[in-house]
Amino acid sequence: MADQKIYKPRPITGFPEWLPEVRRVEQQWMDHIRKIFESYGFCSIETPSVEEIDVLSAKGEVDKEIYVLERLHKDENEKSDARLALHFDQTVPLARYVAQHFNELDFPFKRYQMQRVWRGERPQAGRFREFYQCDIDVIGVDSVPIHFDGELAAIMVDILRGLNIGPFQMQISNRKILMGLCEGLGITDTLPVTRAIDKIEKIGVDGTRKLLVEANIPAQHIETLIKLATIKTENESFVEQVLALGVSSPTLAEGIAELASVMAQLTHIERGYVVADLSIVRGLDYYTGTVYETKLLENRDFGSICSGGRYDDLAGSYINKHLPGVGISIGLSRLFDYMRLNNKLGDLTRKSPTDILVCVPSDEKRVEAASIAKILRDRGLNVELYHSSQKIKKQMEYAVRKGIPFVWFPPFEDRNTHEVKNMVTGEQLPSDPHIWSK
Amino acid sequence: MADQKIYKPRPITGFPEWLPEVRRVEQQWMDHIRKIFESYGFCSIETPSVEEIDVLSAKGEVDKEIYVLERLHKDENEKSDARLALHFDQTVPLARYVAQHFNELDFPFKRYQMQRVWRGERPQAGRFREFYQCDIDVIGVDSVPIHFDGELAAIMVDILRGLNIGPFQMQISNRKILMGLCEGLGITDTLPVTRAIDKIEKIGVDGTRKLLVEANIPAQHIETLIKLATIKTENESFVEQVLALGVSSPTLAEGIAELASVMAQLTHIERGYVVADLSIVRGLDYYTGTVYETKLLENRDFGSICSGGRYDDLAGSYINKHLPGVGISIGLSRLFDYMRLNNKLGDLTRKSPTDILVCVPSDEKRVEAASIAKILRDRGLNVELYHSSQKIKKQMEYAVRKGIPFVWFPPFEDRNTHEVKNMVTGEQLPSDPHIWSK
Repeated sequence: MADQKIYKPRPITGFPEWLPEVRRVEQQWMDHIRKIFESYGFCSIETPSVEEIDVLSAKGEVDKEIYVLERLHKDENEKSDARLALHFDQTVPLARYVAQHFNELDFPFKRYQMQRVWRGERPQAGRFREFYQCDIDVIGVDSVPIHFDGELAAIMVDILRGLNIGPFQMQISNRKILMGLCEGLGITDTLPVTRAIDKIEKIGVDGTRKLLVEANIPAQHIETLIKLATIKTENESFVEQVLALGVSSPTLAEGIAELASVMAQLTHIERGYVVADLSIVRGLDYYTGTVYETKLLENRDFGSICSGGRYDDLAGSYINKHLPGVGISIGLSRLFDYMRLNNKLGDLTRKSPTDILVCVPSDEKRVEAASIAKILRDRGLNVELYHSSQKIKKQMEYAVRKGIPFVWFPPFEDRNTHEVKNMVTGEQLPSDPHIWSK
Repeated sequence: MADQKIYKPRPITGFPEWLPEVRRVEQQWMDHIRKIFESYGFCSIETPSVEEIDVLSAKGEVDKEIYVLERLHKDENEKSDARLALHFDQTVPLARYVAQHFNELDFPFKRYQMQRVWRGERPQAGRFREFYQCDIDVIGVDSVPIHFDGELAAIMVDILRGLNIGPFQMQISNRKILMGLCEGLGITDTLPVTRAIDKIEKIGVDGTRKLLVEANIPAQHIETLIKLATIKTENESFVEQVLALGVSSPTLAEGIAELASVMAQLTHIERGYVVADLSIVRGLDYYTGTVYETKLLENRDFGSICSGGRYDDLAGSYINKHLPGVGISIGLSRLFDYMRLNNKLGDLTRKSPTDILVCVPSDEKRVEAASIAKILRDRGLNVELYHSSQKIKKQMEYAVRKGIPFVWFPPFEDRNTHEVKNMVTGEQLPSDPHIWSK
């Protein structure tokens, strides 16, 4: 060893890595998310970490920051195969998957996907280059019932409430409302309008008004647009408020009806978790109906932690079918890391999944201790057998260090009974392995 | 859509992707493996998908086939950051992790890791370029009790028995036995010997004898080596057989004692699952004590499905500490795909996790149907609410197609009771959502 050169490793910016006690909470988060997804009957899929660049660029030049793979030991005159790149989201892979396996899937195709995605950005503080994303989508052939737009919101509220992330609010709108209002007002160039409304939470009403003036929107229309964008109701009462604007169009009516139907479905959710918020636009293209954003109420500036919406055509680049859908996604690693940095992950004292440490009072007692461990394990508990027959004090210290909640003492010397110590309360009592269960 | 150019996606050789019903079984496998790992108190870690090339090459030139990452939109005059490559195993990442977080970890460090790894090979049939590997290791500072060598074998037998992969056998040896025998026989150039013995299962006793002759091993030593390599016992009786060879050396004695201790620990395992098999060498370097291989008895030629061993120094390239360990690993994707191709994955009719499909007999009944779904969901069941109020026959067909085991009919028309149909037996009976649980 003495003559070995040592390369001291450093963390790689943007590629998160957790200690065991943090990873344990991350697993709990992912288990919880998966459980709720599955409780609504959504199936899991996973796709390869890579896609062909030709797939990623089927819609045109890839403008995303992506990582391309190169074989380290590439032969000079090797016939080059298709170029592969790490996926930067789970939507392109889903589209490709649905197109490729179209005849083997059942529609509406209800799937969730929880994988790592990559962004080939320059390293910079606070920006992940590898992270987990949890997506859920419903894809239909030619149509998808509006009922799913409500269901996805309900699923995500269920999930977020279970994560103990503090107060949050999901804002739901429908792009047809703003588009329909423009239609009714006779505004044909809608891009600057959506762009201005999209920013209202950040730049305020005055900022948005200024942008609309710059876009040459007539003054009276600006006031109507601003009124629309400030409508925010916890139930379907947004409908009257929109109607009170005195504008009408077929698209507007459709949007109002769809959003009303979504809100009606969500009445079982406790007040405050979901609002109809007509300022929500969610980017400038792609989404065509329902749109979702979700904010932490204690830090709205953190941006949306769970977003998505309805789209008209998922996979037109890969298959000659009309496949509309609705989807919503949690940027898991970003949210998780935020909670970690704010000390909101809960109990970080447990450094292993162990429920009980079985002590080994002497080498002769190891077989007996092992058989107790096995009984407890068969009863569903996570059990460590101490790895040596060091002094009991040492074994207890190990349990304390790893945050193991119970320590088991097999009969030894002058004691005929099994005893168990609760490491939290300090209480130590006689016990029997056959009465324990998770 | 009509004018859109379509790029028809194809599977990428070596990057597996499963349909939902296959993925469901893969999830069951991974849940099972994790459960057993945790039941012995091992903690989970995950490392980034990438390591710096400098980390991978700390021990010298990287001879593995690896994928290096290149940013697609790299600026010409951009200052290049550290070059990153996808990890090709979980051992180098573990070594780097332990070195980097040494002061924050508890030793013996008992961790499991179930991630994807990549091999940057040329595409070729039957060779995975991306696959899941499930590793479990114990790392100690300066020493690791031999007790863990037995525990890891027991863990893997527990796991494999639960996967329904048919009969298998784990073969355990200790490299000190062969090394010690060479020591006792005065053979100093051990490399050709280990190479010849390593191949005995493939090329037979005669093939190995031929290789030993070519390596100029004296005839009487060849017979001793062959005798050693054919020792295979289900318990500690290998000890007498080795002693009967009449050779002795300190290393040999150590190896015998260690392997005997491991086998003694495994007596609670049913006969046949574990054997001491002195032909097992497991490659030519790295491992220094216990070695494991595991074969499917119905197809030994498939090679080892679960292998590992004890090593002297995990992380000497990254930290100035002596960190010996013992580890064992399942090449999950390879084994899973083999079972898939041999139709041994069990039930593939279920295309979703749904336990119960709740029918929606009419649009008016949707709210009532949704509240039944919620009750069942709160009771731990996975429940789909049918997405429209199509004819019940259509809804039933959907359940059949997706392999959903139960269909729920809310009260409707002339019926006042809830009824549930068992889709396997065909039986339909009145029921109450409040009596159901998983």
